[in-house]
Amino acid sequence: MRPGFLASALVTDGPVDADLFLKQRSASARYEVTEVPLSALPEWRLTDRLAHTSGRFFSVEGLAVRTNFGPVPAWHQPIIVQPDIGILGILVKRFHGVPHFLMQVKMEPGNSSLVQYAATVQATQSNYQRVHGGRPTPYLEHFLRPSRGRVLVDRLLSEHASWYLHKRNRNMIVEIPPDVDVPRLDDFAWLTLGQLRAQLAAGHVNMNARTVLACISYAGNGPDPEDDFHAAVVASHRRSRSDADLADAMTWLIDQKELYTLDVHRTALSGLDGWIADDEGIRHRDGGYFRVVGLKITATSREVTSWTQPMLEPVPGNLVAFLCRRRGGVLEFLVQALVQPGLTDRLELAASIQLAPGYYRTPSDLPPLVEYLSAPVSQVRHSSVQSEDGGRFLRADTRHVVIELRPGQEVDVPPTHRWMTLGLLDRLVSAGYYVNVEARSLMACLL
Amino acid sequence: MRPGFLASALVTDGPVDADLFLKQRSASARYEVTEVPLSALPEWRLTDRLAHTSGRFFSVEGLAVRTNFGPVPAWHQPIIVQPDIGILGILVKRFHGVPHFLMQVKMEPGNSSLVQYAATVQATQSNYQRVHGGRPTPYLEHFLRPSRGRVLVDRLLSEHASWYLHKRNRNMIVEIPPDVDVPRLDDFAWLTLGQLRAQLAAGHVNMNARTVLACISYAGNGPDPEDDFHAAVVASHRRSRSDADLADAMTWLIDQKELYTLDVHRTALSGLDGWIADDEGIRHRDGGYFRVVGLKITATSREVTSWTQPMLEPVPGNLVAFLCRRRGGVLEFLVQALVQPGLTDRLELAASIQLAPGYYRTPSDLPPLVEYLSAPVSQVRHSSVQSEDGGRFLRADTRHVVIELRPGQEVDVPPTHRWMTLGLLDRLVSAGYYVNVEARSLMACLL
Repeated sequence: MRPGFLASALVTDGPVDADLFLKQRSASARYEVTEVPLSALPEWRLTDRLAHTSGRFFSVEGLAVRTNFGPVPAWHQPIIVQPDIGILGILVKRFHGVPHFLMQVKMEPGNSSLVQYAATVQATQSNYQRVHGGRPTPYLEHFLRPSRGRVLVDRLLSEHASWYLHKRNRNMIVEIPPDVDVPRLDDFAWLTLGQLRAQLAAGHVNMNARTVLACISYAGNGPDPEDDFHAAVVASHRRSRSDADLADAMTWLIDQKELYTLDVHRTALSGLDGWIADDEGIRHRDGGYFRVVGLKITATSREVTSWTQPMLEPVPGNLVAFLCRRRGGVLEFLVQALVQPGLTDRLELAASIQLAPGYYRTPSDLPPLVEYLSAPVSQVRHSSVQSEDGGRFLRADTRHVVIELRPGQEVDVPPTHRWMTLGLLDRLVSAGYYVNVEARSLMACLL
Repeated sequence: MRPGFLASALVTDGPVDADLFLKQRSASARYEVTEVPLSALPEWRLTDRLAHTSGRFFSVEGLAVRTNFGPVPAWHQPIIVQPDIGILGILVKRFHGVPHFLMQVKMEPGNSSLVQYAATVQATQSNYQRVHGGRPTPYLEHFLRPSRGRVLVDRLLSEHASWYLHKRNRNMIVEIPPDVDVPRLDDFAWLTLGQLRAQLAAGHVNMNARTVLACISYAGNGPDPEDDFHAAVVASHRRSRSDADLADAMTWLIDQKELYTLDVHRTALSGLDGWIADDEGIRHRDGGYFRVVGLKITATSREVTSWTQPMLEPVPGNLVAFLCRRRGGVLEFLVQALVQPGLTDRLELAASIQLAPGYYRTPSDLPPLVEYLSAPVSQVRHSSVQSEDGGRFLRADTRHVVIELRPGQEVDVPPTHRWMTLGLLDRLVSAGYYVNVEARSLMACLL
């Protein structure tokens, strides 16, 4: 994104009251979700894998994993395979010089909070090619050739790599010139970045919008004068952005990729050690990790009014946290190189702590640094509960936390971890598959 | 690589005569390669896959491929799986201000030409961790922490994705300060870039060295005054290097990734349609594509003096070609987005024409633009035969061709193809998995 684009982005009032709009749209639609047996999904078949009869959308398959990273050297798990590339796109337009983002109020069956702000367009290929015969995706033409707008952000980024195999989406921000009229449909609202910031803090922005918002490089902007931490965040976005800083970080990342192995094999669901796959769903015999269940959804505000689909429900309690510190006045964040089975290139940068209680059998399985999660409230700079993609994941809520170390407080940094400024993280997000979606979601919360 | 690094790199005389040195070292070692049954490889087992008893080095497995790219929508094939990341590293040092590259004379059992110049270090992880109990890899310490030299180039790049699954190597160029003494071992020589250029033209530089040399951004350098095409090559390296040019090319590449699908499954060798795997090797019943055979190698100039291993031998006749044109005085190269089954991210940029005769059953299988290969000699700017990695591939020779279009000669550019300057290609090579190894090898020949 070009420098200065976000000048005056902190304006907090827009043409609409963002809270009220969300409430009104929520009231205008009905929405019911019921768990059903997998055999009650008329278009899905459970064989060696769980798949749609059309062969499209996605499938759930088995995965055999081997790695020398972490406490468990080999395991089996189900994983979602969805090879097509979805578009997550936000349309932006200046009103009186202030950029406004066109956000859609969207209900997604898996979300714990009823409705949320989503990107302007959030479409899988099956989706926008209208495989399920629904309505066309509004505003999609602004993201496709030949009618594509001015591209500010366009990159392929990874999705949840514990649950998806090699999944990536196209994250786009496209600008419409001020003099071009874009009709606003009922479920859509133009919000300023200041309004989005408040909605993010309240957990009202969905996962797909957060990953797009994480691509905004916040360097061109004035800080909130009443918030010392926000000023430090803005300043951190301006630091360590040089090619030399990037090359140095890349070399460190390649060192990690050289150290750690990852070998994955797609296999039949029926052959997975420890997992049961039958009409009640796909789940681990110990109740850990996650389960895949059938759902029947009835809604009046989505493309079609009633449908069934499988969804993945993780064991609750997931958390993602940044530890940060000020060093020479510069705010730095602790990131780690983390191997995840579904990543395209073995490992990506993750937040300081990425906690998934469903995965730990014994306390020795816990990741390093968890003791910092009990920091006093005075050190907590951000705490919110954010939902994962409610189109695939059921009740998948992740607590997002940012903790600032006290001056002089030292951390025993594990060799997999490294301090980075937000400016360096911005450049790594830009470069492609280098920052995982959990960390990007947390970066969006720092906007 | 920093600008100006290669000033005076065209110096063609170095401390050694590069041709003579190659000849002498070649004479000092003996080398025999015999084809043997797979059962005669004592440490390899053919079961569902062909693997080393230690579980290391590499294995040959089955792959089921589906794609909507090209004339064949689905096929089975064997593929080499080698998940570790090798180091391909060249040491560079200035003598009297002129950069010299430390090249190793190496015999590799698969090469058609007896000996070649290789990178200073060319080591798989198994290799440098000395799994086979051989000698330590000389100069390796300059590429590893904590004794690593000054890093000029460091990037993970893809290898042959028709033959390898998700293989990548670490391409490094590391500089040693002029005042640090690096002892030169017998098989090594310090060559200037001008000397390397002559060796490249003669087909005396091996694949692994070519992919490292392709990372050199040649922009800081004066052209050869006697060679108009070389002047145009140097000028082309200086064009379209901006962030906006890169972003525009990325958007085009993502458009291609969105259009084309690739879904791969690792399977048992025994279940591959059309393929036979027995003691005589792994081959297609029609004799096409490639075969995997057992070899016994005896040498006095490698880490160990005698060993057996499988190798992949392609059907001969492979060719890679750039079409180029001058547009407004700027030399541009036609590249294509090409899906290959083993690529980490579905597709990468390839040369204008990438021809593998072993793959074509009927003339309609031939790729577009092959008719340009019959251009008259007056349009041929480069033609050489280069070998692929002789450690894995047997008699795998690829003709490298660069053809310049006549002024005004028009090409009907397929939608998968696009014109790019070398400057833009340099930036895409730097960015990671965007330019395939076949195209990078051809770029190295343009140095």
